[in-house]
Amino acid sequence: MSENVSIRCGLIGCMGKMGQEIRGYFTTFGDRFVLEIDKGFINESDRPDVIIDFSNPAALDSTIEFCKKYDSPLVIGTTGLNEENLARLKDLSKSVAVVQSYNFADGINIVREILEMFGRYFDNWDGAIVEIHHNQKKDAPSGTAIMLKNSLGRELPISSLRVGGVFGEHTIIFSNAGEVVRISHTALSRRAFAIGVRKAALFAIQAEKGFYSYRDVLRNSVNH
Amino acid sequence: MSENVSIRCGLIGCMGKMGQEIRGYFTTFGDRFVLEIDKGFINESDRPDVIIDFSNPAALDSTIEFCKKYDSPLVIGTTGLNEENLARLKDLSKSVAVVQSYNFADGINIVREILEMFGRYFDNWDGAIVEIHHNQKKDAPSGTAIMLKNSLGRELPISSLRVGGVFGEHTIIFSNAGEVVRISHTALSRRAFAIGVRKAALFAIQAEKGFYSYRDVLRNSVNH
Amino acid sequence: MSENVSIRCGLIGCMGKMGQEIRGYFTTFGDRFVLEIDKGFINESDRPDVIIDFSNPAALDSTIEFCKKYDSPLVIGTTGLNEENLARLKDLSKSVAVVQSYNFADGINIVREILEMFGRYFDNWDGAIVEIHHNQKKDAPSGTAIMLKNSLGRELPISSLRVGGVFGEHTIIFSNAGEVVRISHTALSRRAFAIGVRKAALFAIQAEKGFYSYRDVLRNSVNH
Amino acid sequence: MSENVSIRCGLIGCMGKMGQEIRGYFTTFGDRFVLEIDKGFINESDRPDVIIDFSNPAALDSTIEFCKKYDSPLVIGTTGLNEENLARLKDLSKSVAVVQSYNFADGINIVREILEMFGRYFDNWDGAIVEIHHNQKKDAPSGTAIMLKNSLGRELPISSLRVGGVFGEHTIIFSNAGEVVRISHTALSRRAFAIGVRKAALFAIQAEKGFYSYRDVLRNSVNH
Repeated sequence: MSENVSIRCGLIGCMGKMGQEIRGYFTTFGDRFVLEIDKGFINESDRPDVIIDFSNPAALDSTIEFCKKYDSPLVIGTTGLNEENLARLKDLSKSVAVVQSYNFADGINIVREILEMFGRYFDNWDGAIVEIHHNQKKDAPSGTAIMLKNSLGRELPISSLRVGGVFGEHTIIFSNAGEVVRISHTALSRRAFAIGVRKAALFAIQAEKGFYSYRDVLRNSVNH
Repeated sequence: MSENVSIRCGLIGCMGKMGQEIRGYFTTFGDRFVLEIDKGFINESDRPDVIIDFSNPAALDSTIEFCKKYDSPLVIGTTGLNEENLARLKDLSKSVAVVQSYNFADGINIVREILEMFGRYFDNWDGAIVEIHHNQKKDAPSGTAIMLKNSLGRELPISSLRVGGVFGEHTIIFSNAGEVVRISHTALSRRAFAIGVRKAALFAIQAEKGFYSYRDVLRNSVNH
Repeated sequence: MSENVSIRCGLIGCMGKMGQEIRGYFTTFGDRFVLEIDKGFINESDRPDVIIDFSNPAALDSTIEFCKKYDSPLVIGTTGLNEENLARLKDLSKSVAVVQSYNFADGINIVREILEMFGRYFDNWDGAIVEIHHNQKKDAPSGTAIMLKNSLGRELPISSLRVGGVFGEHTIIFSNAGEVVRISHTALSRRAFAIGVRKAALFAIQAEKGFYSYRDVLRNSVNH
Repeated sequence: MSENVSIRCGLIGCMGKMGQEIRGYFTTFGDRFVLEIDKGFINESDRPDVIIDFSNPAALDSTIEFCKKYDSPLVIGTTGLNEENLARLKDLSKSVAVVQSYNFADGINIVREILEMFGRYFDNWDGAIVEIHHNQKKDAPSGTAIMLKNSLGRELPISSLRVGGVFGEHTIIFSNAGEVVRISHTALSRRAFAIGVRKAALFAIQAEKGFYSYRDVLRNSVNH
């Protein structure tokens, strides 16, 4: 499905930072928000082609109800889902397409794919990961750095820097005696995630029912 | 074949810069040079397991004779081969394994493979290549930059910087509205090539007769 | 003056992108906006300690009137000022402090100072500048790249890349036969400028009357 | 003194890695080695304009004798000098110019000067240092990283990576909420040090008697 199609969207968590970013980005494509939900706020005017949920686990029951009511596929980026939450989403995926991911940034998912496929080419190379984030970030190493390390399937030292306002930089360094290869990802802003969410929404609209990750969205995007 | 095996090598162009680098690196593995050839110099003491040629096209006839005499496979990095030279090598490959490449650096070949496989993931991203080399390098853009661009199968602007003593840096930059992905390769020294030559030598020793590129060496290395 | 002091501000161009960024940033320090002006909008409730103008040359007369009316110093980042505009600002600076600059980013001004002071240390090194900006930027090379080159007082090749959403990256590369020194600046967001504007505002409030550039703000900040 | 002048050199430690690098580099300027010393090796054919010592503390007595015998200034990069060694060098500096340093790389010394002069400009910025070296380097953080931190006069986290054959990379990162400034130094090879040694030799030849560091060499180079 071309990215230039206009979508009628449902948006759960429409007042949150990601909710606002999603609306701002989607609107540039002429998308309309026919269902908008946030704490104490409901705007329901039409059937959505897809429902997007970036809110919190407590909203999940209501979100699932809306998906069933409208037979709408779901794209969900809510963090902190527990086993039971995930089980409910998998149950929902028997009726509609569900895309669930904790990271919708297209580029970071591409980097993960590269590391998974090419990690073994670097088996005889030394490796390390450096990740840089703003000074408000509390966890170290970042979840993304751990994900990247896991995608390599080997142990690597991770250096975490917390400085200023850096939105998010991850660099994987490989070196042998004669060469250095670096693969780095820089997130410029929340826009990175909105781009991936819209890609996932377009995927979900035409996917068969089932439970999908962002990886399925990514792979599908290059096979069409 | 483990990289720790010792090899009996033939080395054509043993006095050249690459010849000396190859000897220096191979020797750290206990390899011996039983056949050494350069202009006005011959040292022939035993049958080589493999013959390595980093000399010039004029030496090709002699190199091919040695390969046939000893039934030794060939690894050849000589530059400036013409059609007829290549035809003769292909003819030789009906008897022994021949690995021919203009760039034996492992990392740059890995980067090329990554770009070939993942280039289409970046179809909707902007892209550019920046390459930096020492101020003695005369051509711009570098042959490697052109090779990398071709492996992407799309047009990209290439910026060439010529400064100081930089041995060789290539960076491919992709960016969309929210993210930047950079893949960069730095050659630290001629050692980069010696490492790849030894990998190719080990490959050639146990390969079936045939004509191979470094890509075959690379792919084989991760399937064993 | 400590950056933690609260300021009563005047803001000309309060609806523009920089106006909104300034309000958002200043508010985190408890600053209040007692004079706010934009096309068809006036909010005037008190004497401002300093007036900030990020609007357009057409507003200059009105801005100067406000500065005189309240005896308020001025920080002006309006672009496209002509000779006559500047003459009028210099005239105003006989009564109050005026800080005028086209680039209030603290870091880029620091980099310029470094290049001015240390440029001659690199006289025997090769040099080059690489600047990367989003694909909407029309001019190339960037004004900042030209400013950095001029601060070195020598000719340097400038490579300009226009990709995706990169807000602004400038890298100066020096290399001799054995070393590479790179000085790079990355603007993360418009916030970069708001930080400098507030520094300039605090400077202007306690400066003697006179005409100042951001350089004066910068130098003053390390001498106290 | 122009760098194109030819020098008659003394070289203590002429067989060591730095000794050979120095000879290789100096020779490209037409310099001659009229005094060469190493363990069990002496070549003494003429008075040297300057004596260069990259050997070990045990050779110091002999080196000082040669300086006195020929009234030659000294450039010494020998590591592991103790208090007594340094006292003896200071004593020698009453008769001839002595340049003593543990790091003759021009660029790293320039970076140190920049940090010393501009460190306070970054007082309100977060900072960090990342240093990358080959996997044979045993100490971490590197002595150079510690020197750079000290030149800033503030505490900074240092991340040390040990991978492959990286000769030596140091990056100082500063970031506030809106910007990132990075100053990085890459040593390409031992050549980096030979360049600085020759600069020091030319300085020593025309300096007044006295005890100098590389900083004096550096500052002198831009004042002429």
